[in-house]
Amino acid sequence: MATITILGTGNVGQHLAKALHSAGHHIVQIYNRTPAHWQELMSFLPKTTQFTTHLAQLLPHTGLYLIAVADDAVAAVSQTMPAVPGVVAHTSGATPMSTLAKHPRRGIFYPLQTFTAAHTVHFEQVPFCIDALLPADAAFLQNIARTLSPRVYAITDEQRRILHVAAVFANNFTNHLLAIADDICQTNGVPFEILKPLIAETLKKTEQQPPRNVQTGPAKRADVHTITQHLQLLETQPQYRHLYRILSESIAKMYHGNLKLPFPE
Amino acid sequence: MATITILGTGNVGQHLAKALHSAGHHIVQIYNRTPAHWQELMSFLPKTTQFTTHLAQLLPHTGLYLIAVADDAVAAVSQTMPAVPGVVAHTSGATPMSTLAKHPRRGIFYPLQTFTAAHTVHFEQVPFCIDALLPADAAFLQNIARTLSPRVYAITDEQRRILHVAAVFANNFTNHLLAIADDICQTNGVPFEILKPLIAETLKKTEQQPPRNVQTGPAKRADVHTITQHLQLLETQPQYRHLYRILSESIAKMYHGNLKLPFPE
Repeated sequence: MATITILGTGNVGQHLAKALHSAGHHIVQIYNRTPAHWQELMSFLPKTTQFTTHLAQLLPHTGLYLIAVADDAVAAVSQTMPAVPGVVAHTSGATPMSTLAKHPRRGIFYPLQTFTAAHTVHFEQVPFCIDALLPADAAFLQNIARTLSPRVYAITDEQRRILHVAAVFANNFTNHLLAIADDICQTNGVPFEILKPLIAETLKKTEQQPPRNVQTGPAKRADVHTITQHLQLLETQPQYRHLYRILSESIAKMYHGNLKLPFPE
Repeated sequence: MATITILGTGNVGQHLAKALHSAGHHIVQIYNRTPAHWQELMSFLPKTTQFTTHLAQLLPHTGLYLIAVADDAVAAVSQTMPAVPGVVAHTSGATPMSTLAKHPRRGIFYPLQTFTAAHTVHFEQVPFCIDALLPADAAFLQNIARTLSPRVYAITDEQRRILHVAAVFANNFTNHLLAIADDICQTNGVPFEILKPLIAETLKKTEQQPPRNVQTGPAKRADVHTITQHLQLLETQPQYRHLYRILSESIAKMYHGNLKLPFPE
């Protein structure tokens, strides 16, 4: 079991502190620039865990220093914190390992999941993307990740950047399309509720088969008549109409080569 | 229990024939222009069920004639079939009730779900959208739908058209975004598998809260730095780059009013 300092008490820092403690690791210190969430963390961490708002007061040890702050604060925390004998890793999907260049033992400990305050995180289902400058440190970080989840992947900076873009499509953009569907329903007095089983079924399918193979709908069928009707219905919502058109064209391109659907902008 | 004739033995017709028979209804006749899937249907329907490839041979009864053919074939089947004493309803989300104008007792029996050959349909989770010209016929169709599912909704032509558009966003377009995420991963040698728990979590959230309230990601945070990096990574896939830009702008618009993200086309 490892000795761990956690820097940052936002969503990711809090959830990881709890999970790592529960997995038997020794959380020696929690840093945050303000005492945010300290009370909550104190309620389950051992009395020996120290808390600080000063990076200069970080305790030296040969374990893990986990930087779990906002993407744009990783660089500042890494540079301001003292040199330490342990491995310094961050949890960001978008930040290169070179941001930690001050620390010779550096790495990545990136849980690829969407964290929301209101939802419990089941870490055993969270994929961990691990990287490190030194092979021994990569093994060290992988071993820690495996105490939380069986899904541990060795992922380079370049691969992690690609995963992050793909995750934006798979999570942020799909969620936005659901929000649009909800908005279209509400604007027209139709219960969005009716669509929920459809959404669940769509996802269930793509867990079992490549999403490309289970595509359905008017654009997949190149059913220009239905698409034209839908565009007419969206006339009062030009932004959604535009998206409908662009996404239908993108589907048509994926399944019918360069076929352009002949409907007006 | 109702007497039912089913017209069409595609995915929807087949699944409904099985489910309606299992629910205790009397399937008197199956029509299809070719004997497609007859053998399969004969294996579980009673020996008394008749099969025909000729609309002129439809048996007259006062129950339900369910037209479950492709959207663009509904009109032709409705007009070619003889006048019947029962209720004529179709299962299409995109076709107005007026398409059945030949029949004074007409209605809609629309199961809002995505049907794929390889997947079993759990009708108890399928919402049925019901409409009819005559109130008594609407009640008749609702009663039949309730033998298959507790989710039965009275939905007008106008509402059904809106639901169909919203369903394209919620199902077809989200599935397409997952296919793009898969493609981005494969093109760059990263396992798409890693994203599956994220996708599952996104959907789980939106079942519990309005999707608008659980939006995350760089566009929601107006994190122009990350968006710019992502657009650079997508430079070799201009189609996906364009979609990334349009969808990010749409998210920014939903959460930040008219703010335009200042990154290049």
